[in-house]
Amino acid sequence: MLIDLKKAAEMLNEADNILILTHANPDGDTLGSGYALLRALLKAGKKARLINNDEINRKFAFLYEGVPSYDFAEDFIVSVDVAEKKLLGDNVLEKYGDRVNLAIDHHGISRLFAENTFCESESASCCELLYLVIKEMGIELDSGIASCIYTGVSTDTGCFRYSNVTPRTHRIAAELIEAGADHSRINVAMFETKSMNNIMLERMCLDSLRSYADGKIALIAVTKAMLDECGTDKSALDAIKPITRQIEGVEIGITVKEEDGDKVGVSIRSSESFDAAEICAHFGGGGHARAAGCQFRGKTVEEVSGTVVDYIINEIIK
Amino acid sequence: MLIDLKKAAEMLNEADNILILTHANPDGDTLGSGYALLRALLKAGKKARLINNDEINRKFAFLYEGVPSYDFAEDFIVSVDVAEKKLLGDNVLEKYGDRVNLAIDHHGISRLFAENTFCESESASCCELLYLVIKEMGIELDSGIASCIYTGVSTDTGCFRYSNVTPRTHRIAAELIEAGADHSRINVAMFETKSMNNIMLERMCLDSLRSYADGKIALIAVTKAMLDECGTDKSALDAIKPITRQIEGVEIGITVKEEDGDKVGVSIRSSESFDAAEICAHFGGGGHARAAGCQFRGKTVEEVSGTVVDYIINEIIK
Repeated sequence: MLIDLKKAAEMLNEADNILILTHANPDGDTLGSGYALLRALLKAGKKARLINNDEINRKFAFLYEGVPSYDFAEDFIVSVDVAEKKLLGDNVLEKYGDRVNLAIDHHGISRLFAENTFCESESASCCELLYLVIKEMGIELDSGIASCIYTGVSTDTGCFRYSNVTPRTHRIAAELIEAGADHSRINVAMFETKSMNNIMLERMCLDSLRSYADGKIALIAVTKAMLDECGTDKSALDAIKPITRQIEGVEIGITVKEEDGDKVGVSIRSSESFDAAEICAHFGGGGHARAAGCQFRGKTVEEVSGTVVDYIINEIIK
Repeated sequence: MLIDLKKAAEMLNEADNILILTHANPDGDTLGSGYALLRALLKAGKKARLINNDEINRKFAFLYEGVPSYDFAEDFIVSVDVAEKKLLGDNVLEKYGDRVNLAIDHHGISRLFAENTFCESESASCCELLYLVIKEMGIELDSGIASCIYTGVSTDTGCFRYSNVTPRTHRIAAELIEAGADHSRINVAMFETKSMNNIMLERMCLDSLRSYADGKIALIAVTKAMLDECGTDKSALDAIKPITRQIEGVEIGITVKEEDGDKVGVSIRSSESFDAAEICAHFGGGGHARAAGCQFRGKTVEEVSGTVVDYIINEIIK
């Protein structure tokens, strides 16, 4: 059942022995939401704890440092930033997937898997909703809660950079800083810190950078050997994919990456003049207009690069 | 004379035939301030124009597009984001340096060169002050004015990332978005676009990256040959200097650059555990605790790198 903010706050105020679930491969928004709620519930004198399916990157350690841990049989389960059940991750899914009493989420594609769902898809982050929920519960923000909420508000908007930012996002950020959110230190940790391995990968990717069609197309090719040599895994590619499109004059940015098996993946980012999803659809893939992907089998990275670039030059840019 | 917001707004409301001056090598804050004020004055039915000493990077073209240009003998001169007279640039300085009626500025080190100065050094950007001035003048924001102000608010805070951001910064950003500031497009142009030449320089700099003292020190060396090969000038180094300190585990990041004559410049960025200004002072330089610089003569980039790293290893990190 879909419920509103007031009802969600009421349910949490009435509950005790509360278990909080985040999504798997947790990011700043799900962890910020979860730990903000955990801190708020503990502050209100309730028993609460948080679990997630995977290891937490240590850059998020400040979210939970100093928070006491309780063990208890849970009477109420709440998920944060989880758009559908399977995103809880296998272990959590198996144990708690069918027992979630309240889901708080901000995804447009949110599936109703919980008994009650408070979802607002216009919200830039789930943490914006947690701000509203915690205020509605009558719990005063402190610097710990504010820092948790700020983390999701900032990371899910690329530090207030993306088009999902609304006036409310900024007004909430103002309140969080007033409540003591350690904003600039959080932003350094979230946005200005890269591992040496990722820097090495970036360097190798820039070495592989090629451009076509008078600079309208840029392509980066990533092989498994490169990932191995840098000691990084696929997650490091998140920082690589935007590079091509950020180059002045580039309309279509392509990242080609060797994957497990005999697969080669292609990510395309495009300017407003071209439709990345349409290009990828030609190769059996799909996605959004500005960011899409497709996959090839039984071809080398070189062959796939040539195929995709030729198609774009001959059929799309012309 | 130092004046307050109310007086500054009053003076502008009483003036006409107004010339607006920015600082030389204009950035987003001085241009955003200047064009916001220009648009507001024209909207109020006054004659106004803006000049600056140097060429404006074309990524700022949206600030002045569609703004009519008038020629007239100026009766009132106002400077924006200019901390001292010589920052106007040689040509503007010579012609108007001693005739500025009102300076609006936010620099802590602001020198009083104008007849009247409205300066608030706690303001993250000069554009924050222009927001206040234009509101105080009773001129309603439109999307053009709001986009100009947003540009300075965003660029002078690294897109709301730096420690100079205050609750007021966010509240003003909220108002600007409501007034129609094209925030996400501005952020793409300001933060997500790099020239191919700058990307090439970044690649070469990453190739030169070395680390010392178990990864606590990272060093990038930039030669004139590298700048020449990439077709970039010194301004491209602004994007290079932060790289070393962004690497996980690095406490002291060093950028060594070959300069004109027989000079070699050194930029040091440090974590909170070390004092960059102190390190640079040892070599006759100075600066801030987290970012400082010094200069050597008659030595090669290699020799300077060795000298600085040896000193830090032997005397600072120990």
